[in-house]
Amino acid sequence: MQFPKRLQLANLPTPITKLERFPLHGSGAQIWVKRDELTGTEVSGNKIRKLEFSLAEALEQGCNTIITCGGLQSNHCRTTAILCSRLGLKVHLILRGDKPEQPDGNLLLDLLAGAEITYVLEQDWATHEDLARKLQADYAASGNKAFFIPIGASDEIGLWGYIAACKELKEDFEQLDITPDYIVTATGSGGTQGGLLVGSKLFDLPGKVIAFNVCDDAAYFEKKIHEDVTLWQRRYKMDVDFQKKDINTIEGYVGPGYGLASKEVFSTIAELARTDGLFLDPVYTGKAFHGMVTEILKGKEGCMPDAGSVLFIHTGGLFGVFPQQQYFSFG
Amino acid sequence: MQFPKRLQLANLPTPITKLERFPLHGSGAQIWVKRDELTGTEVSGNKIRKLEFSLAEALEQGCNTIITCGGLQSNHCRTTAILCSRLGLKVHLILRGDKPEQPDGNLLLDLLAGAEITYVLEQDWATHEDLARKLQADYAASGNKAFFIPIGASDEIGLWGYIAACKELKEDFEQLDITPDYIVTATGSGGTQGGLLVGSKLFDLPGKVIAFNVCDDAAYFEKKIHEDVTLWQRRYKMDVDFQKKDINTIEGYVGPGYGLASKEVFSTIAELARTDGLFLDPVYTGKAFHGMVTEILKGKEGCMPDAGSVLFIHTGGLFGVFPQQQYFSFG
Repeated sequence: MQFPKRLQLANLPTPITKLERFPLHGSGAQIWVKRDELTGTEVSGNKIRKLEFSLAEALEQGCNTIITCGGLQSNHCRTTAILCSRLGLKVHLILRGDKPEQPDGNLLLDLLAGAEITYVLEQDWATHEDLARKLQADYAASGNKAFFIPIGASDEIGLWGYIAACKELKEDFEQLDITPDYIVTATGSGGTQGGLLVGSKLFDLPGKVIAFNVCDDAAYFEKKIHEDVTLWQRRYKMDVDFQKKDINTIEGYVGPGYGLASKEVFSTIAELARTDGLFLDPVYTGKAFHGMVTEILKGKEGCMPDAGSVLFIHTGGLFGVFPQQQYFSFG
Repeated sequence: MQFPKRLQLANLPTPITKLERFPLHGSGAQIWVKRDELTGTEVSGNKIRKLEFSLAEALEQGCNTIITCGGLQSNHCRTTAILCSRLGLKVHLILRGDKPEQPDGNLLLDLLAGAEITYVLEQDWATHEDLARKLQADYAASGNKAFFIPIGASDEIGLWGYIAACKELKEDFEQLDITPDYIVTATGSGGTQGGLLVGSKLFDLPGKVIAFNVCDDAAYFEKKIHEDVTLWQRRYKMDVDFQKKDINTIEGYVGPGYGLASKEVFSTIAELARTDGLFLDPVYTGKAFHGMVTEILKGKEGCMPDAGSVLFIHTGGLFGVFPQQQYFSFG
């Protein structure tokens, strides 16, 4: 199995931790956490796995500038901005939202890393890929070459990130002698979910891959992942038996909206920090973990029946905690 | 060389990165950075190296509770709180300052990790070790056993953290084939500086160890480190030729005060993030890095004459950036 060109940017492999004290009220399930929040410190999380492939492609194409996009508190944009600074590349971010008076969290790190930022209001967001193309043309006109990475690096190139992660998981499972019934992730742009789905087939992993969406709905992810995988098969001439029915996205845990979490999610974040010292975020991992625990506790009535051993992919996102600190309550 | 009992808590070894673009205006020096901000994500920084020894000692003594102390934004307290949660130990922090309405940065993580906190006002801080002893007695009365770790884990036990780091540096230098003229660190409670001084003798490292103090003065660190090393020699029956004159603390870079940084420090932090994608903090590493660069640029008139190859120890502290975000200025 030959991977395409890849930069070594992440601290890999990441460890897997067994949860020792988080209460599951006698459900009998054992949760294991793949610690992808340890892929770096400022560049921690899942995005760096995809960017190892996307940025390698950009360099291969002789680009000196990266354009990418996401929300104001995008973990992907933060990771891209910092990696570009480390690689000596210019980075231009297109962020959804109004320029805040005081940048915080991920956005603060984007600005420190020297990212040029264009803010696009929510109502104009549908045009952001047109804007990216216009920026590419502007850079070309000034003698530069800009590479565009879509939201979350979720495309047929970034898909390799979690395909490669499955190779790592294969080795982890052998070493720890575990056979998960489920592999669980948050899904926001589909790249991690898609990579896990394809990779678990390629490397014959045990465990059904299920994802909790933090925005959009199951139909969106079915379509998006099917498209990405089709483009990937075509581009890399890969033959893998992949069908829409393989995609399991569990709805019902978006809460008030993308980036907005319920009181239960904040309680879950605080509880896991207190019992096992792991930190989730309110945008992605907090919602997915809360959804996973809720489904496990439903037993046979839930979406994860007979959950014995469960692997949760910790996709990072710590810096998203600080801008929402006011929603935690302490004694 | 036999180390005492030690827990494996940090992601080690950390890499060393060569700065490629940070401007030194033709000084000819090459800065290398020992990336101890990569020892973990939530537990990143230098403190975890010391706590591997301090917490091993606590467990050895059969303690179920840890008491430690520091400023409101103490990196050491944050690291201790999270490690205790991971180890299933209760943690009680004594923090200098008034309880803030909205906890931020390190303090937010302390609270999430479930730390019990006693706030002690600045004017009463001199009594904080008495309070720690009283708390120890209270825990004992309720059938618990509490271990006390002083500020920064800077004592004869924590000293092992950077002694062991010197063994790692020895291997790094051989692998990278570098011979630093200087090993530079921030110093706040003396444990990292003291460990580097003793370790570089034990492992025969090249490079003069120099430290930029972020509080107190050179006389304080001379006294503190001499005491710690003396206790260490006695406790572990170690024979090393160590004298006060070995301690080089460069004054003049504290700025407005402990935890308060000048405009130049914030500019230096932003500049390094932009040129090389590394993030310093305004309390420790930002001041030390700014001091180091200033001294290098002074050439023969400075405290670092003939600086060819320089190793800067990045001791972490990222979470201290967020509570001071308003002091950065962006275009």
